[in-house]
Amino acid sequence: MQITAEALCQLLNGTLEGDARAVVDSVAKIEEGHSHSLSFLANPKYEEFLYTTESGIVLVSKDFKPSKPVRTTLVRVDDPYVAFTAILSEYVAQINNKSGIEEPSFIGENSEVGEGIYLGAFAYIGKNCRIGKNVKIYPNCVIGDNVEIGDNTILYPNVTVYLHCKIGANCILHSGVVVGSDGFGFAPQTDGSYAKIPQTGNVVIEDEVEIGANTCLDRATMGSTIVRKGAKLDNLVQIAHNVEVGENTVIAGATAVAGSTKLGKNMVVGGQVGIAGHIQLADGTKIAAQSGILSTIKEPGKNMMGSPAFEFKQYFKSQAVFRNLPELDKRVHDLQQELDALKVAMNENK
Amino acid sequence: MQITAEALCQLLNGTLEGDARAVVDSVAKIEEGHSHSLSFLANPKYEEFLYTTESGIVLVSKDFKPSKPVRTTLVRVDDPYVAFTAILSEYVAQINNKSGIEEPSFIGENSEVGEGIYLGAFAYIGKNCRIGKNVKIYPNCVIGDNVEIGDNTILYPNVTVYLHCKIGANCILHSGVVVGSDGFGFAPQTDGSYAKIPQTGNVVIEDEVEIGANTCLDRATMGSTIVRKGAKLDNLVQIAHNVEVGENTVIAGATAVAGSTKLGKNMVVGGQVGIAGHIQLADGTKIAAQSGILSTIKEPGKNMMGSPAFEFKQYFKSQAVFRNLPELDKRVHDLQQELDALKVAMNENK
Amino acid sequence: MQITAEALCQLLNGTLEGDARAVVDSVAKIEEGHSHSLSFLANPKYEEFLYTTESGIVLVSKDFKPSKPVRTTLVRVDDPYVAFTAILSEYVAQINNKSGIEEPSFIGENSEVGEGIYLGAFAYIGKNCRIGKNVKIYPNCVIGDNVEIGDNTILYPNVTVYLHCKIGANCILHSGVVVGSDGFGFAPQTDGSYAKIPQTGNVVIEDEVEIGANTCLDRATMGSTIVRKGAKLDNLVQIAHNVEVGENTVIAGATAVAGSTKLGKNMVVGGQVGIAGHIQLADGTKIAAQSGILSTIKEPGKNMMGSPAFEFKQYFKSQAVFRNLPELDKRVHDLQQELDALKVAMNENK
Repeated sequence: MQITAEALCQLLNGTLEGDARAVVDSVAKIEEGHSHSLSFLANPKYEEFLYTTESGIVLVSKDFKPSKPVRTTLVRVDDPYVAFTAILSEYVAQINNKSGIEEPSFIGENSEVGEGIYLGAFAYIGKNCRIGKNVKIYPNCVIGDNVEIGDNTILYPNVTVYLHCKIGANCILHSGVVVGSDGFGFAPQTDGSYAKIPQTGNVVIEDEVEIGANTCLDRATMGSTIVRKGAKLDNLVQIAHNVEVGENTVIAGATAVAGSTKLGKNMVVGGQVGIAGHIQLADGTKIAAQSGILSTIKEPGKNMMGSPAFEFKQYFKSQAVFRNLPELDKRVHDLQQELDALKVAMNENK
Repeated sequence: MQITAEALCQLLNGTLEGDARAVVDSVAKIEEGHSHSLSFLANPKYEEFLYTTESGIVLVSKDFKPSKPVRTTLVRVDDPYVAFTAILSEYVAQINNKSGIEEPSFIGENSEVGEGIYLGAFAYIGKNCRIGKNVKIYPNCVIGDNVEIGDNTILYPNVTVYLHCKIGANCILHSGVVVGSDGFGFAPQTDGSYAKIPQTGNVVIEDEVEIGANTCLDRATMGSTIVRKGAKLDNLVQIAHNVEVGENTVIAGATAVAGSTKLGKNMVVGGQVGIAGHIQLADGTKIAAQSGILSTIKEPGKNMMGSPAFEFKQYFKSQAVFRNLPELDKRVHDLQQELDALKVAMNENK
Repeated sequence: MQITAEALCQLLNGTLEGDARAVVDSVAKIEEGHSHSLSFLANPKYEEFLYTTESGIVLVSKDFKPSKPVRTTLVRVDDPYVAFTAILSEYVAQINNKSGIEEPSFIGENSEVGEGIYLGAFAYIGKNCRIGKNVKIYPNCVIGDNVEIGDNTILYPNVTVYLHCKIGANCILHSGVVVGSDGFGFAPQTDGSYAKIPQTGNVVIEDEVEIGANTCLDRATMGSTIVRKGAKLDNLVQIAHNVEVGENTVIAGATAVAGSTKLGKNMVVGGQVGIAGHIQLADGTKIAAQSGILSTIKEPGKNMMGSPAFEFKQYFKSQAVFRNLPELDKRVHDLQQELDALKVAMNENK
């Protein structure tokens, strides 16, 4: 992507101060830019960098008043951060702007793909699938039979979607994601072995969901494992069978949710959290990294921490005493000695 | 799968009450069924749902006596849960009933595949492999040189098996599983860098083992990393080099076992557990989720919890006090003050 | 690999005691060998095994003096462990000695591959890539556009490298590794949904880095996520956007590092560790397994443990008291009772 300051001004409906012919071809933080970098200044904390930046063009607010001489070209816009993000989104869309069907690839009987599709080489689509418009299926993805994928969804390389699963529109699945592997269900037998409980359900991912690399979502035993609209899952997350992840809930990396648990809306779950099976967590619950949630939370918006977790502030107080436990232990020991001495003294006083 | 009540009766050796021509094409919990769903009633706790269910056919016990009028069609069998599971297994077998060799796929020199094989497009088999009968290797799996795979084993898409590894019969490996990557072994050098210790062993997976999505099993430095018969590993589990997982041991998601550790038989390991290297855990050891096991456990059947873990009941007692540590701290502080006051009083009394 | 004792002697510049024609074709620990195994004896602790070993040839030190009769063939070398490792490395290099371009594979426009390349079937290289000499790209790997890979680097099957990432020379990436997936960045909107923050940076992996199976490294929001020379990452590790992993730092399995954190050089990070975002850890920091690091560590070489972590020795002392918390609680309760009794006694004494 190459763009002049002048073209940027037009694109962003901005005003120019400096060299209209300045050209940028990449983006950078204001303190890390080079002569062909585009940067932005939104937070006044970073203002000092404006006067020393190497970046060729910097987006600033329309009402920003520099306190020192500026050498770089400025483009003034209403909201520099929003404008910068729009440019980034456009840049990302351009570099990922793939379309067409590369060969060899595989499309099974009765499967339909919408217009504008990108199907990478060595990608595989099973039978009876319905793939929407402008879907991107990168190389080496495997889509099982009877799968549905909504418009504009992107599957990066090496994603697997098992049969009968449904993925909404405008979703992003990163490499290595597995959707629809069997739930972990086994019935113990009298000889100590386990019989597999057939996992006949599927996974349903609603619209606007993003799922990070190597994250796994198991199919339901019966019915569906569900990820609601707008939820965002980071890398290496484990979602067990029959779990439901609520709308706009965010789950950080390496977290694991056990079977049949329902996460509410707008939750924020930290990394490496473990959540037990068959419980419900209320909307807006926040869980600190590495916590373990063992039971249902009914009250919305609670902050939880610890393993097993309890309320965040309480946990920090307990943790503070934990750090000083050897000292507490010694105080108790000393108290006992003082008390014993007192008893002796009292007896002598009698 | 479409089946009539009459055909179900014959299949399950059951008796019919209701419409012999009722047709079902899917399965559902009794409380979630639709007119074409098959459900079952085994647990008396769910009996109320029988009188309101939408499910077209419900399997019930031969001696079940309804306490209210039943509208749906009943098929009476000896054990409704067992019969239902048999139907589910048949259903799953049917929808996964793939066979034949899809093109393009790759089979290296001197490799033999048994009859009834399914080899998906873009699947790769190296040289000198021995693949048993009725094995299913889904698209985009990669099997290295000199690998052996037993009869009826299923490798879902995007599984990797490195060279020289052995997988038994009737195993299931879910998508993204990696078998035989190098163990994590490096020798520190005097300049602070590390020299790779060659990992020349392999991984041996015995019969009837199921391995969840994106789980990793490293090859041994020398000898074999072993997963014994009937063991079940969930998603995103890490098995390091030279580990041995005992027969019928079950390991939940995101657990990691460090190198050269031996897990006994019939263990139950919760999710996100960490197990240190070079230790042995006795048969039947149970480990609560998120626990950390640092040392050998010789006595069979113990319940462990915590990080570092100790005996489950003890841990819960310590944890209960932990939650109230600020209050305990205050009690000790108050005791000190009372004691000090008492000393003053005593001195005044003298 | 088949080799005689005589050939081994020449190769290792050693001296022979026993049967010059003894042949070995595999390697084993001295206590586990068979007649065709090569073993070594370096640690005197294992000397007893020398007199009972089945191994056909054993490497021993030049100055080793057996205290009992030896039946196996000995090859005397300067350093048996170093010699044995050299043999192992040679063996591993031989069994992985692949080259050439298998068909079908995919190389995009303007991409160049160096001489001696191995490109497995169904491997995919995008546009404008620069792939060095003797690089091995196993089947089903996917390399995005504009990627650079240095000489002698190995990508095992099913590795994904997103566009614009750079991988150095002599690196090893194990199966399922994902390099360059989007960082987990979302801006909360007033309606509770999240807007994706474009991730326009890349991942830079320097020389001599090894990365374990199914490990994920996210691309930077802007700039680069960096793994410095000689770092070693185990399986299932999560490296978030804009993280920097220092030179020769070792990270064990299932550890997760949150965004923008900088790990120093020569760190040793245990398994399942969580490290918070936007912090810096000093060179040589050691972190025990399952610990959680919440804040910057400035002093080099500290040992940390716990979640949240503090200094290792201190942690163990607190943990020791934790195990006895119920008893401490009871002591405080008893003290209170004794004190109360004392007060009553004092009042009576007045």
